[in-house]
Amino acid sequence: MTTSNQAFSELTRNLAWNAEGLIPAIIQDNRSQRVLMMAWMSSLALWRTLETGQTHFHSRSRGGIWHKGETSGHVQHVRSIHVDCDGDVLLIRVEQVGAACHEGFPTCFFRRVTDSLELETVESPAFDPQQVYPAAKTAESGS
Amino acid sequence: MTTSNQAFSELTRNLAWNAEGLIPAIIQDNRSQRVLMMAWMSSLALWRTLETGQTHFHSRSRGGIWHKGETSGHVQHVRSIHVDCDGDVLLIRVEQVGAACHEGFPTCFFRRVTDSLELETVESPAFDPQQVYPAAKTAESGS
Repeated sequence: MTTSNQAFSELTRNLAWNAEGLIPAIIQDNRSQRVLMMAWMSSLALWRTLETGQTHFHSRSRGGIWHKGETSGHVQHVRSIHVDCDGDVLLIRVEQVGAACHEGFPTCFFRRVTDSLELETVESPAFDPQQVYPAAKTAESGS
Repeated sequence: MTTSNQAFSELTRNLAWNAEGLIPAIIQDNRSQRVLMMAWMSSLALWRTLETGQTHFHSRSRGGIWHKGETSGHVQHVRSIHVDCDGDVLLIRVEQVGAACHEGFPTCFFRRVTDSLELETVESPAFDPQQVYPAAKTAESGS
Protein backbone atom coordinates (compact mmCIF):
# COMPACT_ATOMS: atom_id res chain seq x y z
CA MET A 1 0.00 0.00 0.00
CA THR A 2 1.10 3.57 -0.50
CA THR A 3 2.17 5.41 2.60
CA SER A 4 2.28 8.94 1.25
CA ASN A 5 1.87 11.50 4.00
CA GLN A 6 -1.03 13.19 2.30
CA ALA A 7 -3.06 10.05 1.65
CA PHE A 8 -2.39 8.82 5.17
CA SER A 9 -3.46 12.14 6.74
CA GLU A 10 -6.67 12.01 4.74
CA LEU A 11 -7.33 8.45 5.89
CA THR A 12 -6.72 9.29 9.55
CA ARG A 13 -9.09 12.26 9.26
CA ASN A 14 -11.78 9.85 8.08
CA LEU A 15 -11.38 7.71 11.19
CA ALA A 16 -12.97 8.41 14.57
CA TRP A 17 -10.17 8.03 17.11
CA ASN A 18 -11.14 7.80 20.77
CA ALA A 19 -10.10 10.28 23.48
CA GLU A 20 -6.76 8.47 23.79
CA GLY A 21 -6.16 8.69 20.04
CA LEU A 22 -6.79 4.99 19.52
CA ILE A 23 -9.09 2.86 17.39
CA PRO A 24 -9.97 -0.82 17.93
CA ALA A 25 -8.82 -3.26 15.26
CA ILE A 26 -10.55 -6.61 14.90
CA ILE A 27 -8.17 -9.18 13.42
CA GLN A 28 -9.76 -11.92 11.29
CA ASP A 29 -8.03 -14.86 9.62
CA ASN A 30 -8.36 -14.29 5.89
CA ARG A 31 -8.59 -17.97 5.08
CA SER A 32 -10.58 -19.57 7.90
CA GLN A 33 -12.53 -16.35 8.65
CA ARG A 34 -12.04 -16.98 12.35
CA VAL A 35 -11.83 -13.90 14.53
CA LEU A 36 -8.37 -14.07 16.08
CA MET A 37 -8.12 -11.08 18.42
CA MET A 38 -8.88 -7.43 18.97
CA ALA A 39 -6.27 -4.81 19.82
CA TRP A 40 -5.90 -1.04 19.69
CA MET A 41 -4.07 1.05 17.12
CA SER A 42 -2.69 4.56 17.35
CA SER A 43 -2.17 6.46 14.11
CA LEU A 44 1.52 5.52 14.33
CA ALA A 45 0.59 1.84 14.73
CA LEU A 46 -1.66 2.13 11.68
CA TRP A 47 1.15 3.83 9.74
CA ARG A 48 3.60 1.05 10.61
CA THR A 49 0.99 -1.55 9.69
CA LEU A 50 0.51 0.03 6.26
CA GLU A 51 4.23 0.56 5.77
CA THR A 52 5.32 -2.97 6.67
CA GLY A 53 2.23 -4.99 5.71
CA GLN A 54 2.30 -6.56 9.19
CA THR A 55 0.07 -5.62 12.13
CA HIS A 56 1.37 -3.19 14.73
CA PHE A 57 -0.65 -2.11 17.76
CA HIS A 58 -0.51 0.42 20.55
CA SER A 59 0.56 -1.11 23.83
CA ARG A 60 -0.42 0.65 27.02
CA SER A 61 2.02 -1.43 29.08
CA ARG A 62 4.89 -0.80 26.67
CA GLY A 63 3.81 2.79 26.17
CA GLY A 64 4.31 2.58 22.46
CA ILE A 65 4.24 0.45 19.35
CA TRP A 66 3.94 -3.28 19.55
CA HIS A 67 4.85 -5.32 16.48
CA LYS A 68 2.70 -8.42 16.76
CA GLY A 69 4.97 -11.44 16.52
CA GLU A 70 8.25 -9.65 17.18
CA THR A 71 9.14 -12.14 19.91
CA SER A 72 7.28 -15.24 18.81
CA GLY A 73 7.61 -14.88 15.04
CA HIS A 74 3.81 -15.14 14.91
CA VAL A 75 3.36 -12.12 12.68
CA GLN A 76 0.18 -11.22 10.83
CA HIS A 77 0.43 -10.36 7.12
CA VAL A 78 -2.27 -7.85 6.25
CA ARG A 79 -4.55 -8.86 3.38
CA SER A 80 -7.22 -6.15 3.66
CA ILE A 81 -8.44 -3.36 5.93
CA HIS A 82 -12.09 -2.42 6.24
CA VAL A 83 -13.65 0.50 8.12
CA ASP A 84 -17.08 0.45 9.74
CA CYS A 85 -19.99 2.84 9.15
CA ASP A 86 -19.08 5.14 12.02
CA GLY A 87 -15.38 5.08 11.15
CA ASP A 88 -14.52 4.02 14.68
CA VAL A 89 -13.59 0.36 14.20
CA LEU A 90 -11.17 -1.37 11.81
CA LEU A 91 -11.52 -4.92 10.51
CA ILE A 92 -8.17 -6.28 9.35
CA ARG A 93 -8.01 -9.58 7.52
CA VAL A 94 -4.64 -11.30 7.88
CA GLU A 95 -2.63 -14.34 7.10
CA GLN A 96 -1.54 -15.48 10.55
CA VAL A 97 1.87 -17.09 10.97
CA GLY A 98 1.80 -19.58 13.86
CA ALA A 99 -0.97 -18.80 16.33
CA ALA A 100 -2.57 -15.51 17.30
CA CYS A 101 -2.83 -15.84 21.07
CA HIS A 102 0.09 -15.41 23.42
CA GLU A 103 -1.41 -18.16 25.56
CA GLY A 104 -0.72 -20.60 22.75
CA PHE A 105 -4.17 -20.88 21.19
CA PRO A 106 -4.98 -20.27 17.51
CA THR A 107 -7.44 -17.53 18.51
CA CYS A 108 -7.64 -15.34 21.62
CA PHE A 109 -11.33 -16.29 21.86
CA PHE A 110 -10.59 -19.78 23.14
CA ARG A 111 -13.14 -19.67 25.97
CA ARG A 112 -16.86 -20.06 25.49
CA VAL A 113 -19.64 -18.98 27.83
CA THR A 114 -21.56 -22.16 28.65
CA ASP A 115 -25.31 -22.43 29.22
CA SER A 116 -24.63 -22.18 32.95
CA LEU A 117 -22.50 -19.04 32.30
CA GLU A 118 -19.18 -20.65 33.08
CA LEU A 119 -16.11 -20.10 30.90
CA GLU A 120 -15.07 -23.28 29.12
CA THR A 121 -11.86 -23.64 27.09
CA VAL A 122 -12.94 -24.94 23.68
CA GLU A 123 -9.66 -24.77 21.73
CA SER A 124 -6.51 -26.86 21.77
CA PRO A 125 -3.17 -25.07 22.18
CA ALA A 126 -1.08 -24.67 19.04
CA PHE A 127 2.16 -24.01 20.94
CA ASP A 128 3.58 -23.91 24.45
CA PRO A 129 3.99 -20.27 25.55
CA GLN A 130 6.86 -21.22 27.89
CA GLN A 131 8.82 -22.44 24.87
CA VAL A 132 8.11 -19.34 22.80
CA TYR A 133 8.37 -16.44 25.22
CA PRO A 134 11.12 -15.57 27.70
CA ALA A 135 10.11 -15.94 31.35
CA ALA A 136 8.26 -13.30 33.38
CA LYS A 137 6.27 -11.82 30.54
CA THR A 138 3.04 -10.04 31.31
CA ALA A 139 -0.14 -11.01 29.51
CA GLU A 140 -0.16 -8.11 27.07
CA SER A 141 3.51 -8.34 26.31
CA GLY A 142 3.19 -11.82 24.86
CA SER A 143 3.56 -11.11 21.16
CA MET B 1 -29.02 -19.75 28.90
CA THR B 2 -29.48 -19.52 32.62
CA THR B 3 -29.67 -16.03 34.03
CA SER B 4 -29.31 -16.83 37.70
CA ASN B 5 -27.98 -13.86 39.64
CA GLN B 6 -25.11 -15.83 41.12
CA ALA B 7 -23.86 -17.29 37.84
CA PHE B 8 -24.16 -13.92 36.14
CA SER B 9 -22.25 -12.14 38.92
CA GLU B 10 -19.50 -14.71 38.64
CA LEU B 11 -19.33 -14.21 34.86
CA THR B 12 -19.16 -10.43 35.13
CA ARG B 13 -16.36 -10.75 37.70
CA ASN B 14 -14.40 -12.75 35.12
CA LEU B 15 -14.69 -9.95 32.56
CA ALA B 16 -12.45 -6.86 32.41
CA TRP B 17 -14.84 -3.91 32.06
CA ASN B 18 -13.34 -0.57 31.05
CA ALA B 19 -13.44 2.61 33.17
CA GLU B 20 -16.97 3.30 31.89
CA GLY B 21 -18.12 -0.20 32.85
CA LEU B 22 -18.29 -1.35 29.23
CA ILE B 23 -16.82 -4.17 27.16
CA PRO B 24 -16.58 -4.32 23.35
CA ALA B 25 -18.59 -7.05 21.63
CA ILE B 26 -17.62 -8.20 18.14
CA ILE B 27 -20.65 -9.55 16.29
CA GLN B 28 -19.98 -12.29 13.74
CA ASP B 29 -22.49 -14.00 11.46
CA ASN B 30 -22.67 -17.61 12.60
CA ARG B 31 -23.28 -18.96 9.12
CA SER B 32 -21.19 -16.81 6.75
CA GLN B 33 -18.59 -16.02 9.43
CA ARG B 34 -18.57 -12.41 8.26
CA VAL B 35 -17.84 -9.83 10.92
CA LEU B 36 -20.97 -7.67 11.05
CA MET B 37 -20.25 -4.94 13.59
CA MET B 38 -18.72 -4.04 16.93
CA ALA B 39 -20.62 -2.35 19.74
CA TRP B 40 -20.26 -1.87 23.49
CA MET B 41 -22.06 -3.72 26.26
CA SER B 42 -22.69 -2.73 29.85
CA SER B 43 -23.36 -5.52 32.34
CA LEU B 44 -27.07 -4.72 31.99
CA ALA B 45 -26.82 -5.04 28.19
CA LEU B 46 -25.09 -8.40 28.62
CA TRP B 47 -27.78 -9.51 31.08
CA ARG B 48 -30.55 -8.58 28.65
CA THR B 49 -28.67 -10.34 25.85
CA LEU B 50 -28.46 -13.54 27.89
CA GLU B 51 -32.05 -13.23 29.11
CA THR B 52 -33.62 -12.66 25.69
CA GLY B 53 -31.18 -14.45 23.39
CA GLN B 54 -30.97 -11.28 21.28
CA THR B 55 -28.16 -8.73 21.31
CA HIS B 56 -28.53 -5.61 23.45
CA PHE B 57 -25.87 -2.89 23.64
CA HIS B 58 -25.07 0.20 25.64
CA SER B 59 -25.87 3.39 23.75
CA ARG B 60 -24.08 6.56 24.75
CA SER B 61 -26.50 8.72 22.75
CA ARG B 62 -29.55 7.04 24.25
CA GLY B 63 -27.92 6.85 27.66
CA GLY B 64 -29.00 3.30 28.18
CA ILE B 65 -29.85 -0.03 26.65
CA TRP B 66 -30.26 -0.42 22.92
CA HIS B 67 -32.03 -3.54 21.64
CA LYS B 68 -30.48 -4.12 18.22
CA GLY B 69 -33.31 -4.35 15.70
CA GLU B 70 -36.04 -2.84 17.87
CA THR B 71 -36.94 -0.36 15.10
CA SER B 72 -35.90 -2.22 11.97
CA GLY B 73 -36.75 -5.76 13.04
CA HIS B 74 -33.15 -6.65 12.20
CA VAL B 75 -32.50 -8.47 15.44
CA GLN B 76 -29.55 -10.75 16.14
CA HIS B 77 -30.24 -14.18 17.64
CA VAL B 78 -27.29 -15.20 19.79
CA ARG B 79 -25.73 -18.56 18.93
CA SER B 80 -22.57 -18.41 21.08
CA ILE B 81 -20.50 -16.05 23.20
CA HIS B 82 -16.72 -16.31 23.47
CA VAL B 83 -14.36 -14.38 25.74
CA ASP B 84 -10.77 -13.47 24.84
CA CYS B 85 -7.60 -14.26 26.78
CA ASP B 86 -7.58 -10.97 28.68
CA GLY B 87 -11.33 -11.11 29.36
CA ASP B 88 -11.79 -7.66 27.87
CA VAL B 89 -13.47 -8.47 24.55
CA LEU B 90 -16.52 -10.58 23.68
CA LEU B 91 -17.07 -12.40 20.40
CA ILE B 92 -20.76 -13.08 19.82
CA ARG B 93 -21.85 -15.30 16.96
CA VAL B 94 -25.37 -14.56 15.79
CA GLU B 95 -28.06 -15.35 13.29
CA GLN B 96 -28.73 -11.94 11.75
CA VAL B 97 -32.28 -11.12 10.67
CA GLY B 98 -32.21 -8.68 7.73
CA ALA B 99 -28.98 -6.69 7.62
CA ALA B 100 -26.65 -5.59 10.40
CA CYS B 101 -25.84 -2.02 9.37
CA HIS B 102 -28.23 0.88 9.88
CA GLU B 103 -26.94 2.28 6.58
CA GLY B 104 -28.53 -0.66 4.78
CA PHE B 105 -25.49 -2.87 4.24
CA PRO B 106 -25.19 -6.52 5.33
CA THR B 107 -22.14 -5.61 7.42
CA CYS B 108 -21.02 -2.33 8.98
CA PHE B 109 -17.58 -2.94 7.41
CA PHE B 110 -18.75 -2.05 3.92
CA ARG B 111 -15.80 0.23 3.12
CA ARG B 112 -12.35 -1.02 2.24
CA VAL B 113 -9.08 0.89 2.43
CA THR B 114 -7.69 0.86 -1.12
CA ASP B 115 -4.01 0.67 -2.08
CA SER B 116 -4.03 4.47 -2.38
CA LEU B 117 -5.59 4.68 1.14
CA GLU B 118 -9.00 5.85 -0.01
CA LEU B 119 -12.22 4.38 1.39
CA GLU B 120 -14.12 2.41 -1.23
CA THR B 121 -17.62 1.00 -0.69
CA VAL B 122 -17.38 -2.69 -1.56
CA GLU B 123 -20.84 -3.93 -0.53
CA SER B 124 -24.29 -3.58 -2.04
CA PRO B 125 -27.09 -2.30 0.18
CA ALA B 126 -29.56 -4.90 1.43
CA PHE B 127 -32.26 -2.35 2.28
CA ASP B 128 -33.06 1.35 2.00
CA PRO B 129 -32.58 3.00 5.43
CA GLN B 130 -35.16 5.67 4.57
CA GLN B 131 -37.79 2.97 4.21
CA VAL B 132 -36.84 1.25 7.45
CA TYR B 133 -36.14 4.07 9.90
CA PRO B 134 -38.26 7.10 10.78
CA ALA B 135 -36.74 10.42 9.63
CA ALA B 136 -34.10 12.41 11.53
CA LYS B 137 -32.40 9.47 13.16
CA THR B 138 -28.79 9.84 14.21
CA ALA B 139 -26.20 7.35 13.06
CA GLU B 140 -26.01 5.38 16.28
CA SER B 141 -29.73 5.28 16.81
CA GLY B 142 -30.36 3.33 13.63
CA SER B 143 -31.13 -0.09 14.99
